[in-house]
Amino acid sequence: MNRTLGVCYYPEHWPETQWASDAARMVAAGLTWVRIGEFAWQRIEPAPGTFDWDWLDRAVAVLGDAGLKVVMGTPTATPPRWLVDQMPDMIAVDAQGRPRKFGSRRHYDFSYLPYRDACRRIARLMGERYGRNPHVAAWQIDNEYDCHDTCLSYSDAARAGFQDWLAQKYQSTDALNRAWGNVFWSMDYDSFDQIDLPNLTVTEPNPSHVLDFRRYSSDQVVAFNRVQVDVLRDLTDTPLIHNYMGRTLTFDHYAVGADLDIASWDSYPIGFLSDRIEGTEAEKQAFLRQGHPDNQAFHHDLYRAVGKGRLWVMEQQPGPVNWAPYNPAPLPGMVRLWSWEAFAHGAEAVCYFRWRQAPFAQEQMHAGLLRPDDAEAPGLAEARQVADELAQLPDVSAGTAPVALVFDYESAWAWDAQPQGADFEMFRLAFAAYRGLRKLGLSIDILPPDCADLSAYKLVLAPGLLTLSDNLRDALARFTGVALIGPRTDVKTPDLTIPNPMGPNLPGTDVTVTLTESIPPSDAIALEGGGAFRHWFEALDGTATVHHRTADGRPAIMGGDHLRYLAGWPSDETFVDILRTTCAEVGVATQDMPGGLRLRETPEATFAFNYGADPVDWNGQTIPAAGVAWVKR
Amino acid sequence: MNRTLGVCYYPEHWPETQWASDAARMVAAGLTWVRIGEFAWQRIEPAPGTFDWDWLDRAVAVLGDAGLKVVMGTPTATPPRWLVDQMPDMIAVDAQGRPRKFGSRRHYDFSYLPYRDACRRIARLMGERYGRNPHVAAWQIDNEYDCHDTCLSYSDAARAGFQDWLAQKYQSTDALNRAWGNVFWSMDYDSFDQIDLPNLTVTEPNPSHVLDFRRYSSDQVVAFNRVQVDVLRDLTDTPLIHNYMGRTLTFDHYAVGADLDIASWDSYPIGFLSDRIEGTEAEKQAFLRQGHPDNQAFHHDLYRAVGKGRLWVMEQQPGPVNWAPYNPAPLPGMVRLWSWEAFAHGAEAVCYFRWRQAPFAQEQMHAGLLRPDDAEAPGLAEARQVADELAQLPDVSAGTAPVALVFDYESAWAWDAQPQGADFEMFRLAFAAYRGLRKLGLSIDILPPDCADLSAYKLVLAPGLLTLSDNLRDALARFTGVALIGPRTDVKTPDLTIPNPMGPNLPGTDVTVTLTESIPPSDAIALEGGGAFRHWFEALDGTATVHHRTADGRPAIMGGDHLRYLAGWPSDETFVDILRTTCAEVGVATQDMPGGLRLRETPEATFAFNYGADPVDWNGQTIPAAGVAWVKR
Amino acid sequence: MNRTLGVCYYPEHWPETQWASDAARMVAAGLTWVRIGEFAWQRIEPAPGTFDWDWLDRAVAVLGDAGLKVVMGTPTATPPRWLVDQMPDMIAVDAQGRPRKFGSRRHYDFSYLPYRDACRRIARLMGERYGRNPHVAAWQIDNEYDCHDTCLSYSDAARAGFQDWLAQKYQSTDALNRAWGNVFWSMDYDSFDQIDLPNLTVTEPNPSHVLDFRRYSSDQVVAFNRVQVDVLRDLTDTPLIHNYMGRTLTFDHYAVGADLDIASWDSYPIGFLSDRIEGTEAEKQAFLRQGHPDNQAFHHDLYRAVGKGRLWVMEQQPGPVNWAPYNPAPLPGMVRLWSWEAFAHGAEAVCYFRWRQAPFAQEQMHAGLLRPDDAEAPGLAEARQVADELAQLPDVSAGTAPVALVFDYESAWAWDAQPQGADFEMFRLAFAAYRGLRKLGLSIDILPPDCADLSAYKLVLAPGLLTLSDNLRDALARFTGVALIGPRTDVKTPDLTIPNPMGPNLPGTDVTVTLTESIPPSDAIALEGGGAFRHWFEALDGTATVHHRTADGRPAIMGGDHLRYLAGWPSDETFVDILRTTCAEVGVATQDMPGGLRLRETPEATFAFNYGADPVDWNGQTIPAAGVAWVKR
Ligand SMILES: [Zn+2]
Ligand SMILES: [Zn+2]
Ligand SMILES: [Zn+2]
Repeated sequence: MNRTLGVCYYPEHWPETQWASDAARMVAAGLTWVRIGEFAWQRIEPAPGTFDWDWLDRAVAVLGDAGLKVVMGTPTATPPRWLVDQMPDMIAVDAQGRPRKFGSRRHYDFSYLPYRDACRRIARLMGERYGRNPHVAAWQIDNEYDCHDTCLSYSDAARAGFQDWLAQKYQSTDALNRAWGNVFWSMDYDSFDQIDLPNLTVTEPNPSHVLDFRRYSSDQVVAFNRVQVDVLRDLTDTPLIHNYMGRTLTFDHYAVGADLDIASWDSYPIGFLSDRIEGTEAEKQAFLRQGHPDNQAFHHDLYRAVGKGRLWVMEQQPGPVNWAPYNPAPLPGMVRLWSWEAFAHGAEAVCYFRWRQAPFAQEQMHAGLLRPDDAEAPGLAEARQVADELAQLPDVSAGTAPVALVFDYESAWAWDAQPQGADFEMFRLAFAAYRGLRKLGLSIDILPPDCADLSAYKLVLAPGLLTLSDNLRDALARFTGVALIGPRTDVKTPDLTIPNPMGPNLPGTDVTVTLTESIPPSDAIALEGGGAFRHWFEALDGTATVHHRTADGRPAIMGGDHLRYLAGWPSDETFVDILRTTCAEVGVATQDMPGGLRLRETPEATFAFNYGADPVDWNGQTIPAAGVAWVKR
Repeated sequence: MNRTLGVCYYPEHWPETQWASDAARMVAAGLTWVRIGEFAWQRIEPAPGTFDWDWLDRAVAVLGDAGLKVVMGTPTATPPRWLVDQMPDMIAVDAQGRPRKFGSRRHYDFSYLPYRDACRRIARLMGERYGRNPHVAAWQIDNEYDCHDTCLSYSDAARAGFQDWLAQKYQSTDALNRAWGNVFWSMDYDSFDQIDLPNLTVTEPNPSHVLDFRRYSSDQVVAFNRVQVDVLRDLTDTPLIHNYMGRTLTFDHYAVGADLDIASWDSYPIGFLSDRIEGTEAEKQAFLRQGHPDNQAFHHDLYRAVGKGRLWVMEQQPGPVNWAPYNPAPLPGMVRLWSWEAFAHGAEAVCYFRWRQAPFAQEQMHAGLLRPDDAEAPGLAEARQVADELAQLPDVSAGTAPVALVFDYESAWAWDAQPQGADFEMFRLAFAAYRGLRKLGLSIDILPPDCADLSAYKLVLAPGLLTLSDNLRDALARFTGVALIGPRTDVKTPDLTIPNPMGPNLPGTDVTVTLTESIPPSDAIALEGGGAFRHWFEALDGTATVHHRTADGRPAIMGGDHLRYLAGWPSDETFVDILRTTCAEVGVATQDMPGGLRLRETPEATFAFNYGADPVDWNGQTIPAAGVAWVKR
Repeated sequence: MNRTLGVCYYPEHWPETQWASDAARMVAAGLTWVRIGEFAWQRIEPAPGTFDWDWLDRAVAVLGDAGLKVVMGTPTATPPRWLVDQMPDMIAVDAQGRPRKFGSRRHYDFSYLPYRDACRRIARLMGERYGRNPHVAAWQIDNEYDCHDTCLSYSDAARAGFQDWLAQKYQSTDALNRAWGNVFWSMDYDSFDQIDLPNLTVTEPNPSHVLDFRRYSSDQVVAFNRVQVDVLRDLTDTPLIHNYMGRTLTFDHYAVGADLDIASWDSYPIGFLSDRIEGTEAEKQAFLRQGHPDNQAFHHDLYRAVGKGRLWVMEQQPGPVNWAPYNPAPLPGMVRLWSWEAFAHGAEAVCYFRWRQAPFAQEQMHAGLLRPDDAEAPGLAEARQVADELAQLPDVSAGTAPVALVFDYESAWAWDAQPQGADFEMFRLAFAAYRGLRKLGLSIDILPPDCADLSAYKLVLAPGLLTLSDNLRDALARFTGVALIGPRTDVKTPDLTIPNPMGPNLPGTDVTVTLTESIPPSDAIALEGGGAFRHWFEALDGTATVHHRTADGRPAIMGGDHLRYLAGWPSDETFVDILRTTCAEVGVATQDMPGGLRLRETPEATFAFNYGADPVDWNGQTIPAAGVAWVKR
């Protein structure tokens, strides 16, 4: 695998006279890729049916002639004002019923079919023009689906689409009423036309109603994306990519990824630490200028699965951003560290966002590799250093980790539909499990919920899953390592109701969850020998062996030699303890990571990353703050 | 009084084949009552004018034949979808102006008259069919008025109704303008049609405007309930009941209760602790799995007054619920304790909610006495124990307490209309007084604001009342115990303006509130000899005796031998101290309650309840955590 | 200057029989001014075109004959209901798109031109009737512009007005697109009709779009005010005044003030401390009953600039108010202290709000000088004391302070449009600078951003300015003291984009801000020798001298002998340290103020105010809590 660097560029933002020197400086910095086009619809088609391709032709030529490979973006995340005037109902509607106005970006409704047609048309025209252009070596479709909460819309178009989707799924309202249990509060429907979107109800809507709406909404993203995939497939042989965001769970990325060739994501470690990632105040303070030490790794591993092994970072934070609650500058060295962590997790390319800081509009306070006045910003030297290091070092491949975590989007929606705890989200539990593994120095593979083969792994975690798929249940039946299943896994039907017999349904393992409780942050359930469950606890019954107990004698881990059910949500420390013990049992070596140190094993080398603000000793060497080290295996 | 147990049951949720065994198991568990029907409108009338009574006939027969008494609920809290289609304007509108959609329950506007007609019709049909059925021994009308904030609606129907109500009350806009003081900001109206609902104004609306809207809204609940009372009175001789919620203050429960035979309420001690009851973090932690030790007692005493002496618990929490921010399981023993506390406060019946946990829809995570798979849940054994104990123990009656607390709904609305402190609600003050009394081991009667006779009591508290009714003022004039009146009592007119001469108007007692101040939580006013007023302080003037002073010498309690005005809102500790002293003066014995211990005296026995998580010694015995003890008097 | 006292009075609230005695008591209390009329539109014009002037004629006569001077208010802050019925679109719309209903006050849209006509008409009629009345000695136009967030409206009228305003400013959408950088996300407009108001966009709107909307909205306030100024100028020779609120930044007060003769403001020290003024919890606790010790001074200095030297306090808090989160009573003496602080800062008149507490409507819990029952409230004795003292003491004049702070409204809008930190507002930085100066015992002049002459000052602060005006830059070029410019000053263009070359552009001083970062409250940047920057830091480059460094060696203060750029937002303590050092350098004497002591120097005397709750020693005397002292200079 030939690891490469790249950068996001917007030729339409700069005088054409500057393009050639920009391209030359990119090449001189060691960059391979330049991403363009994604927000340029209005400049390509300034009026309905009036096209101005010339400038884009010239931009591709200038960049390509300088030796750069172009990633061409379809501009469908920013429909021009004239298109909104043509089809005002393309605008999405928020959960409060308010249309979301033009004036920024992503102002379209995934359910509105005429806009899909408009996207097909512009994608086709771009594909026809650049699909075989020798400089265009990859395509990005749209930009950051669901960013700014744009997946869910409560519009008339969404309601009509949802009603059709339900009619196709259930065929009769009788079947739907039974599946959802609408008898509960006289909520039965006589016709699909009566079914509204599940917002603004008097009290909570039926969770089965919500879950189906979430499935429907995810399907619209998949369908929206597929429209452009379908049209571009015939027009280019280069890979098709989407750039996902961090902690975005409202659509099934595996399903979108199935239609694409590469999964890329936009990695903003410092912004994400402050606006979306778990962490104590102490952690947020300790990693303020570095980002959470496990967040980048988690998303690399997740999107490597979404990309069926092919991963890029399409946007890498190069300095302070503009959109987080506070926007401090990275610790010197972090741009290099983040880049190397991506490569160590299998990324083929890391593109910095953006080449030169824009002097205007919403992101004018977002740093680039260059300052707005064209001088070098601090990130550029670090990018150049990475380019040099890449040239000097042998390739690494992603390999297979000893440990796997099953991660499922639909389960996240089920949690949202029925959280039971005020601040419960499935991501929190899954990320807690992931953090526990990383604190033990482990490398992890993330698996989709329908994976059919676990034989490569010694330890598998399956926390928070709505159900176990047939594939996964079969794989678990054959599994020879230890699978730690739960908590809150396979205790519901796909309709989000309670099965009878009650779950989980673990092959050859008699464990039943008989009662669940959610626990406020001020309380916990102590475990025998120390440690505690927080947030969530399930009373277990059955004939399986009890491996671990609560301090008052109730089952905490219960099951057989291979399949075990975890009855609660361990505290961070307890998660580490449970995982350390289980790893020892299955022969996976662990090391307790001090502070911000994290490891990543590849077949060729072990990488060490110091996210801490102080030096740390590891493997006989001292790694400075924000430092990266590697040793051949 | 024959104390009984019961359970809430939804035959329409379960296969008919299961009904007989359910009934037999209820009887075997010692249950007397089974409540059905309340959410079944759509199953009774699946299409407009098309009725399916057969299943309900059979359900009543099966349950009745097993020996159970049926409480029949009218299903008007869950109008079916087809009815909403017939009359879309029946939907209520929230304070932000958004219609509150179908898809859960209570999606009706109390002001919308055609819906009242529809309720009259379904209640009449049910009354005609079951009013004389020998198995049907009581009726519940609707379910949990105002639950999910459904009393106040800002719809067109509400505006039109409010305008009519104002026209009837004031007869002329001139009178209204004068009563409200609309001259203040040129707010005078020329016609009743101009008067809008008091939401979404630029800054606060006129508090007199708000208070009248609150009175109007309460009147609609009374009128709505009366429609069904009127129709059922002729069709049945069994008692008519409504099941009120906890800390629900938006309508006048006394006025609704005046039309009914029994007041019942839905007691969810753990849910209420976390979502609506005062308490320090330490208390919320200490009583996480028990509920606040005074909340159940308060509502029992309140609803005993609302029921003119007749009290039920229609829904008793039997395990974890689904709707609170966090939903932990009760400490073992609490289901029994809660049941006994209800009986000790005069309840005739305690019905658990619900028989079997529903496997679907909004409340699928709400425990029942049975699990969804039909096995016994932990609550059932405790219910069975209570049934056994009831059979073995003599009856107790409610009796009359030595201490009374006047509690008024209209005053709560006046506080809402003009809080003066960011988090002020009248309930907080009344409940603080109640807690103080309970901490001294006292039993309390709650009295309505128009009570005319206080002669049974030695101590009467009247905190936070908008005005003193003529009845109450006369009773106070004759009172021979000590009445502790205030703070914030009788200092306004019924129009929520300031009277001249200024209040309070205490018979034979010269005290005037000359200036009031609200105080942030960070501050307090120290009292002579220790203790403090928090939140609220009133400067008092007059010739009456000063019984207690602030540390800087201002009156803290002022009045005569019998009527005394309390100038501030005492801290919890200070409230206990003031009440202890006053009780000593009037010859009411007190005991300082350790931790979660609480007492309830009845003419026949004294009950002790240990809400604490540790055993406590009392009266020569050790009461375990969640334990109940009683001694004959 | 003849310093005077006054009071706000509403004859329409009281029986006419009471007017004469009220007037006599006002005169007896030493009051000169009585403000009337401001909310009386409905009583003047009870129906369209039907006028009732008689009562107002008599009120003016009674008050004037008693020896009082009348301030006549135009009643345009409270349009009557019938006018709203005539022009329903006069109602403003909030940022959520909801019309803001009638039922309180300020329910008009500044953009709605027919309402301006209605205001012109009522102002003309009042001017014709009272403009030459010998008792009417001043006019107040409207009341508290922007109070209750009423400057910004998102109505159709505002959108249409904004589009016209943009068309006039930019002449072509091309020019606008370029100025705003609309190319960024394909946000270009083809026609001004396409440009919506910048609310409810999917993610943040273009900050240049927001800033222009803020400018437009401010212009509407100026235009609205000018309509009444224009009509009254011809009809009266007495001064025209508006009464501004505290910490109101949404319109350019300098621009409104340019059309008026006197700037007055409404000073509510205790209410403002709790609802709008910076302060640690400890400060809010320490000054709960006094108000922030720097807030009144800041606004006096600001509005003295807005009034081009002429300052009044139109409403002075006399006791507890009704509208803050909590409303405690002032410490005895504070009413006198606040009055004297106003006079020491150059106020010509201080009017108390209000004469007698209203017994009805929204402000019935707002104290007056009299109680609702006509007895004296505590504030009256203090007012009388001030009147006596004024009579005995010689006049003071405002003079010129040694130190100046440049304060700009447009810069505040730029911060709002692009805060970069979750809780950043320009006022916070400016007030931090002001507090630092006050803690050193200094008197301060506030200057508008276009001031052209700094020669009177030894130290000038210019924090947080969007740009430096040409006037100010020229004045700085000639400045012989030390100007501490920044942070965040002159680093943007007037369009709120980044200039090239990058700013600031300081005459003869090579400093460039190369990168900025915002910092959460949990972090800080340490300075060499102690102290820290909080919230905001700018990396500086250039050839100018580094006067002060961060602990890790980056420039903290950089520039020449006279013009220096401050690279960050100093902590409160650090601000004091930096200012103390700089004052020493320029020969301005400072004294560290203990606790709540503050000074104000006038040419004639030095005043000392003790905002603390304990006595403090100063200049050989002990000033009691809430005490005022003065020494002749
Ligand atoms: Zn992006
Ligand atoms: Zn209920
Ligand atoms: Zn005012």
